[in-house]
Parts: sequence; structure tokens; C-alpha cells
Amino acid sequence: MRIGVLTAGGDCPGLNAVIRALVRTAHSEFDSPVLGFQDGWSGLVHDRAVPLFDDEGIDRILLRGGTILGTGRLNPDTLRSSLPEIRQTLDRHAIDALVAIGGDGTLKAARWLTENGIPVVGVPKTIDNDVGGTDYTFGFDTAVSIASDAIDRLHTTAESHERVMLVEVMGRHAGWIALHAGLASGAHMIVIPEVPFDIDYVCKVMSRRFQMGEAYGICVVAEGATPVEGSGMTLREGGTDQFGHEVFTGVADQMAAAISERMNRDVRTTVLGHIQRGGTPTAYDRVLATRFGVHAARAVHRGDFGQIVALRGESIEMVPVEDAVAVLKTVPEDRYREAACLFG
Amino acid sequence: MRIGVLTAGGDCPGLNAVIRALVRTAHSEFDSPVLGFQDGWSGLVHDRAVPLFDDEGIDRILLRGGTILGTGRLNPDTLRSSLPEIRQTLDRHAIDALVAIGGDGTLKAARWLTENGIPVVGVPKTIDNDVGGTDYTFGFDTAVSIASDAIDRLHTTAESHERVMLVEVMGRHAGWIALHAGLASGAHMIVIPEVPFDIDYVCKVMSRRFQMGEAYGICVVAEGATPVEGSGMTLREGGTDQFGHEVFTGVADQMAAAISERMNRDVRTTVLGHIQRGGTPTAYDRVLATRFGVHAARAVHRGDFGQIVALRGESIEMVPVEDAVAVLKTVPEDRYREAACLFG
Amino acid sequence: MRIGVLTAGGDCPGLNAVIRALVRTAHSEFDSPVLGFQDGWSGLVHDRAVPLFDDEGIDRILLRGGTILGTGRLNPDTLRSSLPEIRQTLDRHAIDALVAIGGDGTLKAARWLTENGIPVVGVPKTIDNDVGGTDYTFGFDTAVSIASDAIDRLHTTAESHERVMLVEVMGRHAGWIALHAGLASGAHMIVIPEVPFDIDYVCKVMSRRFQMGEAYGICVVAEGATPVEGSGMTLREGGTDQFGHEVFTGVADQMAAAISERMNRDVRTTVLGHIQRGGTPTAYDRVLATRFGVHAARAVHRGDFGQIVALRGESIEMVPVEDAVAVLKTVPEDRYREAACLFG
Amino acid sequence: MRIGVLTAGGDCPGLNAVIRALVRTAHSEFDSPVLGFQDGWSGLVHDRAVPLFDDEGIDRILLRGGTILGTGRLNPDTLRSSLPEIRQTLDRHAIDALVAIGGDGTLKAARWLTENGIPVVGVPKTIDNDVGGTDYTFGFDTAVSIASDAIDRLHTTAESHERVMLVEVMGRHAGWIALHAGLASGAHMIVIPEVPFDIDYVCKVMSRRFQMGEAYGICVVAEGATPVEGSGMTLREGGTDQFGHEVFTGVADQMAAAISERMNRDVRTTVLGHIQRGGTPTAYDRVLATRFGVHAARAVHRGDFGQIVALRGESIEMVPVEDAVAVLKTVPEDRYREAACLFG
Repeated sequence: MRIGVLTAGGDCPGLNAVIRALVRTAHSEFDSPVLGFQDGWSGLVHDRAVPLFDDEGIDRILLRGGTILGTGRLNPDTLRSSLPEIRQTLDRHAIDALVAIGGDGTLKAARWLTENGIPVVGVPKTIDNDVGGTDYTFGFDTAVSIASDAIDRLHTTAESHERVMLVEVMGRHAGWIALHAGLASGAHMIVIPEVPFDIDYVCKVMSRRFQMGEAYGICVVAEGATPVEGSGMTLREGGTDQFGHEVFTGVADQMAAAISERMNRDVRTTVLGHIQRGGTPTAYDRVLATRFGVHAARAVHRGDFGQIVALRGESIEMVPVEDAVAVLKTVPEDRYREAACLFG
Repeated sequence: MRIGVLTAGGDCPGLNAVIRALVRTAHSEFDSPVLGFQDGWSGLVHDRAVPLFDDEGIDRILLRGGTILGTGRLNPDTLRSSLPEIRQTLDRHAIDALVAIGGDGTLKAARWLTENGIPVVGVPKTIDNDVGGTDYTFGFDTAVSIASDAIDRLHTTAESHERVMLVEVMGRHAGWIALHAGLASGAHMIVIPEVPFDIDYVCKVMSRRFQMGEAYGICVVAEGATPVEGSGMTLREGGTDQFGHEVFTGVADQMAAAISERMNRDVRTTVLGHIQRGGTPTAYDRVLATRFGVHAARAVHRGDFGQIVALRGESIEMVPVEDAVAVLKTVPEDRYREAACLFG
Repeated sequence: MRIGVLTAGGDCPGLNAVIRALVRTAHSEFDSPVLGFQDGWSGLVHDRAVPLFDDEGIDRILLRGGTILGTGRLNPDTLRSSLPEIRQTLDRHAIDALVAIGGDGTLKAARWLTENGIPVVGVPKTIDNDVGGTDYTFGFDTAVSIASDAIDRLHTTAESHERVMLVEVMGRHAGWIALHAGLASGAHMIVIPEVPFDIDYVCKVMSRRFQMGEAYGICVVAEGATPVEGSGMTLREGGTDQFGHEVFTGVADQMAAAISERMNRDVRTTVLGHIQRGGTPTAYDRVLATRFGVHAARAVHRGDFGQIVALRGESIEMVPVEDAVAVLKTVPEDRYREAACLFG
Repeated sequence: MRIGVLTAGGDCPGLNAVIRALVRTAHSEFDSPVLGFQDGWSGLVHDRAVPLFDDEGIDRILLRGGTILGTGRLNPDTLRSSLPEIRQTLDRHAIDALVAIGGDGTLKAARWLTENGIPVVGVPKTIDNDVGGTDYTFGFDTAVSIASDAIDRLHTTAESHERVMLVEVMGRHAGWIALHAGLASGAHMIVIPEVPFDIDYVCKVMSRRFQMGEAYGICVVAEGATPVEGSGMTLREGGTDQFGHEVFTGVADQMAAAISERMNRDVRTTVLGHIQRGGTPTAYDRVLATRFGVHAARAVHRGDFGQIVALRGESIEMVPVEDAVAVLKTVPEDRYREAACLFG
């Protein structure tokens, strides 16, 4: 069998580890050649292919962030209307099956293509850990590690200057990174999209710390956090300054202004941004991504198409795409309550 | 309720995170004071107790390796014969229940004490990840990270000098650290206690690399690895040199000598040793250990004695001690085969 | 002799290492007790003192970021008018001499106090490395390490998404952090306050990369960078959005907008912010700060007042305060040209 | 001008950073092509050459440990007798000058070749920091960082188990790594080759700690440390066990046995070994190595042959080879005394 592989969506530490393990396993277990398509689905439509040999070059990418194949965002309509081109590309290279590594959209596309006669195995990829069907996704542990290292550093600065500090981390719809990074770094408050925040309660938790004689407070905020309705704070989405330039103020910066006003105290914000999704994966993510790659190769050879590889407890299992994409996996209430007993 | 806590056995990154979360949760959810006993079980027998307040001091230990309570090895007979002293200590401090953080022996003691009227909740601790009943134990991820960071560094040295390098990691009875560190760092061969090694096969894998034009080879060896019977290599246990001094040659050093002779090549060994079990835990281990601490506090208040906290998928659940200690959790054959498709 | 010590100005990794080495050396070499004053100079004026014993507690702070004494900003006028209170505090505790750890303002105060009969040894502290008289200051290496780790991570993200990325680092008046972090992380362009930038030239360097087939470009920008006069870009200092909220757009964000417009390409900014100045110091900074502390204790006992400890080549020497504060130490032209041969 | 480059001796983090900066500067400032010779001097003798283009490939090696050119040990006699072959190789490729990156032997060879009509610029390389003429050499900061990270981890293990721990680091003739890693990690004793140790004094320092109520002690030992003559301990060089196998017991292991006997206490040893010299260089080393590479390219074009690039304070200067190799740069007495005030 000849296998094609592509990576789609935002980059994520571990993508290269999946590609490496797929290529090496395809070769060592099945003697299958693997062809990579560049820049996500568009490489498949426009036939930008590179052979991936099982050699020293592929072996080295294990530690490298990003994806050697490049990536791109998927427009589902474009994909559907490009079925003939995709078929031509696959025929031209005699590809028997695809492995598609990506998020929600990519996994849905994997199913749709399978239903339309193009066999695809999906590998879930989301740094936010919000895909269902799998306990964890690779890249998440790396993001949490980077964020908690950064928060560790902020503790001493906040303390030396007797400040409240807010740290904005990734997570537009799910608060997993905020939850885990906050737990790992001993944050005094964690704010996630799943539980709208009351700015007065945040102030109360921070104030109580100063009353107890502590010198500072740290609050981790997911970028998608929103204030509870009817509270004294609303979020503004965007804006324009008096010079006519667009300005964007994130949720943490808006919270900082509100807290500073209420507490009459120096409040600072750090927005971690892009550093959370790049660079060498943690050992955990390299192991998980490698196992996903090994099992994706095996799934192709077993014919488990329209399914994704998933971590369940200690095992890698195959799961129907529907289980992964039906609903966004958000932080359940009991996980937040678990963290909340350590607030303050 | 008043809770006592102790840590027993070898130290392990995350012990302090468990203690911190236990103290904070006991205080915030149940208003329960916590008393620590020093140096493992002997602190309970000899009443060396320290109060653990929910203050800044306890909050700071999250990142600290080791255990603020000190630790000690348990002699089961001593424990059994010390029941009266233990009862006296608990009565003296009006302790209602214990949380015992430790390995196999400690968890068995937790059950035995519960059966003898002293209610104990167990928290499994093993850097080797070989306790049953839980997907992972804290400390393991840190050990794997340290080992794979070290192996990452050895790659470039081995390559520049065109060497075979052996890295000995912890794991006397179970090869989990070797397996995961080897996967994470792209080792070319992994040798674990569960699968006796054939030294000629190890040489064959390494030789094939040089024949393929690669400049080096890295083999990760668990300290408890043994040669397959009937092969050309036997392990010697210990020795004495001509000066009368005891000498100990580990399995990796013995393998290195055998490989060097067979391959006629420069082979070097690195024994990682104690650095694998100390220092700041990874974010993953801090989250896991914190969750164990939160749930240990809750288990005490629910009365789930004679049980241990355990990670099952994404949840923390209570598991009977029997499930944890019945058999050593070793690397199953399919996990080793998963890794083996990346050898060479 | 009895010694007082204080830390002033912004926090900086290594402050605690200086305090520790001062206390331990004062004790071991001179049997001198040390008293710490809290929150910078105000602790001296208002007599907030803590004894610093040479014990396990002080030994542990070596790795801890921030300062156990707290810090504060100095108002020189307040200091001058508070001479009587300072004298009273020193008399009350029978302090013979002070060690003042801080930046420009603190070192000037050290000289002024010495001239007014209060003997002070200065220890230069600036994360920006812009104090004269010393090759390097502690904290700088840590800031450079954190920044270059972050930039390492951005490389793979920028490449996978084919982007230009700007990274804003600390350095209001001197570009040392940008220069060293840019060199260390292989940035394709470095912009520092000492050399006003031409936005069209920055675009040209980045465009050339894409023309040569590279997929991305990274530009490190010191927060104090300014456009060259007469170029097509001016910096706006601050602003107000249409909701009446103050908004601040840093130089990197303003450059990103300008580059994006000129190159018609996705340009992203990461502002590293506070994480650059907190947390555990690098080994280099721990050594340098420790040596500063040892020599500060010795300087007090030799009577080298009105002077600062300084690194010159491999040696720690005493330097008059004038040499340190006469002019800000900025990046000389030849150092920038050295970096510039690696641009693009 | 056409430039040849080679790396010789043991590998060292930063070698690739020198090569990269040399190639890029030669290209950007002088339009000079660079040719690499493989496996040290033997690549020059046997003409194993690879062109080094100023492209993405060379740009990427900045963070990579080891050397892309491979390395080899130099036999000075071989080199001298191979002058004709070297001349042929250089003629064949029309190489005008060489850059030789290596230790003592390589720098001497650089001078000898220059005297014999083959112009060479030397770049000093020694992880041990024992080359004269330069304040520091690249690789040293990385080795110190790795060692002090490891020792940081051992602190908590030693403390939890109430042990004395010895850590053996590199340094056969000079104790720089032991000195700096010991200072950076707060070791309680440092033993270096320059100052023969008295085992009874080491025991005294450690015992005093336990008497003062501390729970543990850490001693950093350079591999080349030797006992003072006439003390109660002698070093044995090597040995053979009763099975006829050669055994080697390092100085730290021998000290551990002696201390354990004298103090009647659990003493453990960790030998850091090869991990100290591999992997990604620290930011400090990447900056230093990059600057060495830039200046090596310029030195070639200025014709500064028979000289080496060297760090003097903040500047890179040219220094005659004689200054670098005349005597081994060892730790001076005052540097050791500086550290000694923090012992115990």
C-alpha cells in the first residue's frame, strides 16, 4: 500500500513526531512508501507532493516543532468541490489511503472523503485539548508546560513588587490549558470560558490574599473567558484609537483595568501568545505523537478508515470520527471545582 | 476531622505537591487541620509530628522536589509490632485518619492498618510507574523528561564521535522509564527487564545502522535488564578488585564491553542515576500530584479507607489497595512491539 | 562590623543570590551579622528590618527569583530629605555600613550617602545590562535565555504558517537583550534603540528571504526602538479607543501593522513582557551574583565605600560609582555591525 | 578568498554555531565560499570535503549540538608528515586559508601550519575552559548549566534521604566546571585538581552540617581531583575484578567509600559523564560561538594568521597562539578561596 499524509490547521508540537512514526512504521512493518502533501489540504488538491523516506532526515524531525509539510486552513466547501482534483492527485501517485492530521475540520473532512470513496485515517490535533474521543491530544502537554514555566517566573516578580498579575493563555472555547497550567503553577485563581467570571469575585479572592498578609496574587485567564451576565463588567470586542488605528484589547487586559480600578492596586498582564504552540515537544507529547503515528500506519493497513486514533487510558484505540467531533470537549464542572479548592 | 499524613519510600518529584493539595483542600473544603509525620512510618511510631498550616509556606512547596516531611523505608514487621505506639501517637494528636503516600509496601500497610482499626487512604507513589490500578503515577513523567533530555544531548555527541552509546535508566523490575524515554528521544534500541535481551541482536541493530551510513547508535537500557538465557552473555552481580575493594558494574557497562568486543568499536555508557528522581516536577506531574492530594482529602471525608486514589483516563477514582499491589505493573508485550517498529 | 543590605528598583534574577553570598561571606570570613531592610530604601527610612542568619533558610534562596527583601522605587528627593531617619535606623541597629543592590538611582544614592557620612558599597543591578563600569550585570543572561528560548519556539510556528513574526523584548534605552537574544536565536533582523530603524529596510530584508525561498522571517525588537526620522513611519505614544479606554500599542505591534501593509502578508507580534525578569536565574547569573555578594562583603570590610563591585574580564573589581552611572552603557556600533552580518 | 574549515577534538556545544557564523559572514561581508573538511584534520589530509552554502540548511544548525563536520583526534606527527597531502587538498579546492576549531593540539597545529606556509586562523574550543588567552570558551557555559541543573535535582533527593552526595563533573586538569557548577548550585564543598583534597577535611565540612541540624551535604568533584599527599587516602588508577574484567572506579566513587567509612553514613555518587558535552548550547554559548565565527571570517580577510579569536571583557580580539597554549589555564587560588567562603 502507498500512503499519503498531510497536516492541516494551526501548528502544534508533535506533528513531526507523528509523521516520523508513521513513515518509519509504514516502512518497517508494512514496507509501505509514504508521500507527504504540503500546506494542508491544498497540497492534495494542487498536487504538491514530497516523498518521505525512512532515513536519517526523517529520524531527526522528532524534536522539531511545527510541521515539515507546512500547514493550511481548510475551507470545507473548497474541499468538497475539489474532489476530482484530489482523486487525480491520488491516482497520479497511486496512493491507496490518506492519513490526515488536524483538528475538527480535518477530521470531518476525513470522514466525508471516506464516505466518498477516498479512505482516510484521522489523527486528532488540537493544542487546546478540546477534541472528543481521546483523553489527551499531543501538543497540549507542551503548551501547558510552557505556560506553567512562564507563570512560575511571574510569581517572584509579582511578589517582589506586591502586584496582582494576570496571565492570558490560549483557549478560545475550552479552558484546558488555563486549568492545567494554573494547577501546575499554583495560580491563585483560574478563569475559563466554561465558567463565566464575576469580576467582583476575582477581586475578592485577590483582596483576601493581601488581607492574609500575602504580597501578591496570580490569576490565569483563558483567552475566551467572558464575564457573567449582569455583573459590573462587559467585554468590548475591538476598537479604533483616535488615530484611526484598529486596537485590540484582550480579556486579561480588560480584566486588569477593572481589577486595578476596584482594588486600587498595580495590576499587570502578560499575554503568552504564540510561544505556547511552537518549539520542541515535551517528552510526554513526543511519546503520545509517536504512538499516534505508529497506530495510524497500522490502522491504514487494517482498513480502519473514517476513524481516528485516540488515547484511552494507557491504550491507543480507534474511535469513529463522530465521537471526536460531535461536541467540543470542554472542562467539566467537577474538574473546575477540583481546581477551585486551591484558589486564594 | 483531623488528618495525619506521611511520605514513605524513595523520594519522587510531586510528593510535596500532594501534601500541599491535601492540606489546602482539607482546609478549604472541610476545615480540617493536617499534621505531618516525619521520616515515613517511623515518624508515626516515634511521634515526630509537625503541624501543616494552609499558609504561604505550604503554598510554595509545589515546585520543590523531595518531601518536606522526609522519608524512610518501611520494615513491615516493625510496623506490625508498633501498632500500640501508632495508636498512642494518633490518640495524642486526636488524628481521625491517615493519608499514606508511598509505594507497594506503604499501600499494603495502609490496608493492614485500616483492617486493624486505623483508617488510612493510600496515595500511590512510584517513579517507576509499576503500581497497578492507576494509569500513571506522579514522578514518572519527570523521570522520563530528565532521561529524554539527557539522551537528546547524547545524540549529538555520539554522532560527532561515531559511537555506540548506552544509557542506563531506572527500572529494576519494570521498563516504563526506558520505554518512554527511549520513545521520546528517538533511541535506536530499548532494552527492558520484561524482554530479556540477546546481545547479538543488539549488535545487529547497531551494525545495520552503520551499514546504512548512519554515524552512531543509541541504546536505552533499564537497570534491571537481563540477557536472554543461552545467549553469549551472562551478567555478573558484583565483584572485588585486586585491591580488595568492592566494585559494581551495571548492566549497561557490561553490555558496552560485550558490544565493543563484538563490533570492534568505541562504545560508551552513561548511567543517569539519582538525577532522575529529584528536583522540580514537570507540569504534568504537578497536575497529577495535586489532583491526588485534592482527592485524598475528599476520600478521607467520604470514609473511603483502605483504598487508593488512582488516575483512570481523565478521572481520579478510588481503587481498592488490592488492585494496586496484587501484581507489579510491567510493560505489556504490545507496548514493547509498538516501540520496536521504530528501532534501528 | 554590622552590615545592612537592601534591594531597590525592578526585580531581577540573582538578587537573592547576592544576598545569600553576602550573608554567608560576612559570617564565614568576618563573623559579621547582616540585617536586611525591606522594600528598598523605604525600609531603611521607615526601619523595616529583618535579621538575615547564615542558616538553611538563606542557603535555599540561591535559586529563587525576585528578592526576599522586597523592593521599591527610589525617589532621590525623598532619600535626601530622609537622611535623619536613615541615620536613626542605622544607629538603632548599630549598622556600620550598607550594601545597596540596585540600578542607576541606587548607585548614585550610594555615593551621595557615602559622601554624607553613611558608608555604602554598591552592587549594580540591571536586567538591561546598561550600567557602565562592569562587563555584565546579573539577570541579563537569564533575560537573554528566556527570550531566546521563546524565539526558538517562534521559528517553527512562523515557518509552518509562512509568516513574518516580530518579538518585542525589554530594553527601553539599550538594546543588549535584543542583540544577544537575537544572536542566540538566529533572528533574521534585530532592531535596537541605538540604531533607529527604517521600516522599508526591515521589509526589504524580510522580502528577500521569501524571494530566496525561505518560508518565514523573525525580527527581534527592543521595546525602546524608534523609526529613523523622515522615514515613512512614526510612532504614536498612546491613545484612547472609541469607548474612552486608554490603549497602548507597543513598537512591535506598530511595526507589524506597517510591515503587513507594505508586504501584504500575515505578520504576528509576541510581546515577551514580565516573564523576562522573573524566576530561577541561569547558572551564569547565579555565579556572577554570588561573586558580587562575596566581594561586597569583602569591600565593606576593606572600607571600599562609594564604590561598586564590577566584573572585568574574569575578575571582580571595585569601580568608582561615577564610572558606572556617568553614561548609560548602550550597544556600540561595532557590536551591532557584528550582528548585522547575520541578518537576512 | 576561499576558506576551508574543520573541527577537531572532543565535541562541544557551539561548534555548529561557529561554522554557521563563519559561513554566513564569509558570504555576506566578503562573498567568500567556505568548504568544510570532515572528521577533523584527517578530512584535510584525505580530502573529504563538503561545500557549506549560506542557505537555510546552515542557518538551522545554530541550536544543534555536536558538529556537522564530524571530528577526530589529532596526532601531531601524522599531521607534520602529511604536509604534502594537505597542500594538495588545498590546491585541489583552491583554498586560500583555513579556520581550525579545536583545542590545544589544534591551535598548535594552526601555528605550525602557518609557519609552513599554510595560513590558518584558530578558534579555541574546550569545554573545560582551560585554554589561555581568552576569558571564556564556548561550550563551557553549557556544561556548567547542565551540571548545575543536575546538582539542583540532587539537593532534594539528598535532603529527603539525609545523605551525603558526591557529583563528579568533567575537568581532568582544570576545575572550572566544578567551580562554576558548584557555585551555581550551592554545593557545600567543591574539590578541584588544582587544590589536592584532604578527605578528613571533606568529612569535617560534611559532619559539621549534620551537627548544625542540616539533613544532607553535597560535594562537587572534578574528575581530575587528587588527594593531598600524606593524607589517609590514595587513589587507585584502575583494576581488574575477580572475573578478570577491567574495572574503573572514579575519584568520586573512591571518595564516597572513604567518606562513608569515616562518617558511617549513606554516601551516594553521581557521575554526570557525557551529558555535559552534548546538545543545544545555552544562549550564552550561542552568542559567544557566533561572535567567534564572525571574527574568524574577518580575521581570514585581514590576514591575521597564526592567531586565535578570543574573548577579552566584552570584545573579541585576536591573540597569538602562543598566549593560548603556553600553559593550561587553571583555577587560580583566589577564585577557589572565593568559593570556599560559601562551603559548609
